[in-house]
Amino acid sequence: MVKSDTSTDASNIYMIKEDDYVLLYIDEKRKHIFRVRAGYRFSGDKGFVDHEKLLGVAYGTKITLSSGVKAYVLNPTTEDMVFKLFKRPTQVIYPKDIGRIILKLDIGPGKRILEAGVGSGVSTAFLAKYVAPEGKIYGYEIREDFAEMAMRNISLLGLEKYVEIKIKDISEGVDEKDLDAALIDLPDPWRILDVLYNALRPGAPVVFFLPTMNQVIKLFDELSSSTKWIAVEIEEILERIYETKKNAIRPRVRMIGHTGYIVSTRKILNM
Amino acid sequence: MVKSDTSTDASNIYMIKEDDYVLLYIDEKRKHIFRVRAGYRFSGDKGFVDHEKLLGVAYGTKITLSSGVKAYVLNPTTEDMVFKLFKRPTQVIYPKDIGRIILKLDIGPGKRILEAGVGSGVSTAFLAKYVAPEGKIYGYEIREDFAEMAMRNISLLGLEKYVEIKIKDISEGVDEKDLDAALIDLPDPWRILDVLYNALRPGAPVVFFLPTMNQVIKLFDELSSSTKWIAVEIEEILERIYETKKNAIRPRVRMIGHTGYIVSTRKILNM
Amino acid sequence: MVKSDTSTDASNIYMIKEDDYVLLYIDEKRKHIFRVRAGYRFSGDKGFVDHEKLLGVAYGTKITLSSGVKAYVLNPTTEDMVFKLFKRPTQVIYPKDIGRIILKLDIGPGKRILEAGVGSGVSTAFLAKYVAPEGKIYGYEIREDFAEMAMRNISLLGLEKYVEIKIKDISEGVDEKDLDAALIDLPDPWRILDVLYNALRPGAPVVFFLPTMNQVIKLFDELSSSTKWIAVEIEEILERIYETKKNAIRPRVRMIGHTGYIVSTRKILNM
Amino acid sequence: MVKSDTSTDASNIYMIKEDDYVLLYIDEKRKHIFRVRAGYRFSGDKGFVDHEKLLGVAYGTKITLSSGVKAYVLNPTTEDMVFKLFKRPTQVIYPKDIGRIILKLDIGPGKRILEAGVGSGVSTAFLAKYVAPEGKIYGYEIREDFAEMAMRNISLLGLEKYVEIKIKDISEGVDEKDLDAALIDLPDPWRILDVLYNALRPGAPVVFFLPTMNQVIKLFDELSSSTKWIAVEIEEILERIYETKKNAIRPRVRMIGHTGYIVSTRKILNM
Repeated sequence: MVKSDTSTDASNIYMIKEDDYVLLYIDEKRKHIFRVRAGYRFSGDKGFVDHEKLLGVAYGTKITLSSGVKAYVLNPTTEDMVFKLFKRPTQVIYPKDIGRIILKLDIGPGKRILEAGVGSGVSTAFLAKYVAPEGKIYGYEIREDFAEMAMRNISLLGLEKYVEIKIKDISEGVDEKDLDAALIDLPDPWRILDVLYNALRPGAPVVFFLPTMNQVIKLFDELSSSTKWIAVEIEEILERIYETKKNAIRPRVRMIGHTGYIVSTRKILNM
Repeated sequence: MVKSDTSTDASNIYMIKEDDYVLLYIDEKRKHIFRVRAGYRFSGDKGFVDHEKLLGVAYGTKITLSSGVKAYVLNPTTEDMVFKLFKRPTQVIYPKDIGRIILKLDIGPGKRILEAGVGSGVSTAFLAKYVAPEGKIYGYEIREDFAEMAMRNISLLGLEKYVEIKIKDISEGVDEKDLDAALIDLPDPWRILDVLYNALRPGAPVVFFLPTMNQVIKLFDELSSSTKWIAVEIEEILERIYETKKNAIRPRVRMIGHTGYIVSTRKILNM
Repeated sequence: MVKSDTSTDASNIYMIKEDDYVLLYIDEKRKHIFRVRAGYRFSGDKGFVDHEKLLGVAYGTKITLSSGVKAYVLNPTTEDMVFKLFKRPTQVIYPKDIGRIILKLDIGPGKRILEAGVGSGVSTAFLAKYVAPEGKIYGYEIREDFAEMAMRNISLLGLEKYVEIKIKDISEGVDEKDLDAALIDLPDPWRILDVLYNALRPGAPVVFFLPTMNQVIKLFDELSSSTKWIAVEIEEILERIYETKKNAIRPRVRMIGHTGYIVSTRKILNM
Repeated sequence: MVKSDTSTDASNIYMIKEDDYVLLYIDEKRKHIFRVRAGYRFSGDKGFVDHEKLLGVAYGTKITLSSGVKAYVLNPTTEDMVFKLFKRPTQVIYPKDIGRIILKLDIGPGKRILEAGVGSGVSTAFLAKYVAPEGKIYGYEIREDFAEMAMRNISLLGLEKYVEIKIKDISEGVDEKDLDAALIDLPDPWRILDVLYNALRPGAPVVFFLPTMNQVIKLFDELSSSTKWIAVEIEEILERIYETKKNAIRPRVRMIGHTGYIVSTRKILNM
């Protein structure tokens, strides 16, 4: 995990050190994350600043770019890191969805979680953060390039020790047993229901993330006609972000109107 | 924390034991949580079952009520426990909001979090779960009855060691310093901005949860005209739950259309 | 059409006359519509008023109920009449949907419109209002009791001359030809696509109103694989109503989260 | 009004004639409206077609572009015309809002309507269509260029005889009396409440269309503390459009998340 995020050693938590990630906040549209390294320079359309000037400075401090423009150095949150720093070639789940899913899956310290369809590791990173400091995410990803990118991404957060990614088609089987929960982000999850069933402990919650109505209906029909699953729920999470202009607060005109449907269920013993 | 939730000792995790909480799932509208105790009996409109019959049974097992109706014994998630078991005299934040807020506040193991307006402890419980096993929630609640109810509620989850609730008007000051984040669920948060500022580490994220437009505008005006806060964001989370009827999947007609606006900001050094 | 609604004879438009419908507005939750008749009395939980006292009074006037409570006499809009006065045993389309559908169907004076699944006549009434003073709605309704209720309802608005309702299964054929548009509110509209096609003029727009995802997918698959229809569109209209409390404006907690999906298409010549 | 829209003369309604507007539907992203004139040619990225080939052809007919690509000639709806043909330099109200507003304002044949803030005439056109064949829209627009553009736009639909636009600041007074309803699309409507009041008949409904929360609160406070207005309501209309891809139906990712709040009220006599 990123040091500045979790350390409780008060003596050094506030000072920016070599190799720390910082979020340079210039204005609403200019938020830059980078690693501080002596000898480097941040440069943007509003001016530049040498990293050296940030070393030893407290988080939250106002600095001045070369142009005279003001900026603030903040410690990035996990959300900042993931959504600004991760390489993301795939469609991703948004924070609105991830937050909801973490509660649905009852993620918590020590849990062992299955993830199928790791993609760039966005949801993996959050799952890993919330099973720390003892749990583990077992990720199955069929594409080698995605699996590698995901591990590189997750390493940026220092969360790699909570994640094991396998380059493997999950339909061929899951190596682990008695897993506590699963997040399935695959286009055809009905194909792997038996494999999934065998990998989970009884009662384990599962979330499927599906973009289309057609998938939802097909999966629902499979789950609800099976004796292996119960408590099938379907929902969507919508996030309405507001424009924050003085005396003119209003919902943004352009909104992300859909990411995916969240379908959840729980494994029951089939006797 | 509830044992069945976090234990990784595989030998006993699947068997229901005396004093465990179970979720008895009869159907979509009948989900009952209770503590298993020899000599007790669960009784509902679909029949009864003696607790004794659940002891030593695996989670996920199908049982038969006195009436012949089938039911399943599941281990409750934190969400199940909080929303079915907590006494809640106050308006609460919903899972859709809590999940989003946990990411916004960058909650994680070891964090020290301020909460003002604890109410019945719903959000406190989730914050506590996600700062475990090392962090702490410092809750300020002006009403003694709420504070006590909140602690009783949180104790149901075994999370009490991560929570300290003070019966105190937060406007009189926060005892802690350098807190990592804050969740403020008060009707007039503009009154406590200075106190809040002094309690937080530089860069710390804050979330305010506010039901009305009028509050949002007033708070936004205060925050955006101050030199102490930056990155003010406003959003809402909407959850659309679907009816899960075979061949007739549709969004529920009755929907929770609003809980509150999520206003967030970060503390900056005011120099 | 209701006189008070459309008359342009300024000399008598503002005075309440015998047999006029009035909307008695007491407060947000007490809006009563009734017909003014000498000798009758309006009576509610906030007091009573004799109709006689309303005769000759101008619309918009403040009156005093027997209890001393104030009330206002307004002329009801078509929307007020339909949603407060119509007998409605069936699920209805809401104003949010009807307004959108009227534009989609290009309803206007003189148009001849097919409606299948008349129900209690709610949408029929609005269609009729907007084809007046020359057009006509041809309604097909299989249930005699609904058809009769619908005509009684529509007569309350004086719109009966723009409506002809047939107690007939539309799948057996439509008597009219070259209709300008159609509104289909049936559970299985894919069964009547050929009949529908034959009743419409080339290019005519059609709206199907469907509550479930399953219906939407089935209908879409039929329409998009046919050579008889083009420009298939699917949408939903959501209405978010706000609580209007001084200093506490907020979206209502309870919201109608779903009525139906609006699927539209246009007939093309199949050559 | 456009001939092809309202004529009930069956003998010529289906054939495209010189000077008719047609909607050439090539595919979901290529819908072109133009006026058919011998000697002209439609040309797009998918090929061209000479207008001559469309004359005498029935609406709904499939034609072939020069490239071999198929297309359909449809008669445009008013919505098609307004949103594809109108010059629109200003932010406009969307169909979702207009449909709802028409019902709120109880627009119907013969009504005399005030509109303040005409802009490019988008809502004016729909109001005009629904007061035809006897009513009138009185539009007040402070900018001469907008007023002229609006009249040119409205003339495209043949609706100009139902509209009178005045280049005048409405705060200086409304010339008409006893108007049936008003649509106010101004940034500071609280400034003109007295003028508005004087122009309306008692009981008349008014809709204000406002983009920001701040405006809504300010207007609501004015209206609710006045003795001249009653039944203040606030709502928003959201339109969720779906992607219509075979086997992959889903809400569009990019959505118009906000246009404006609809605030409505009714004039009461102030005695």
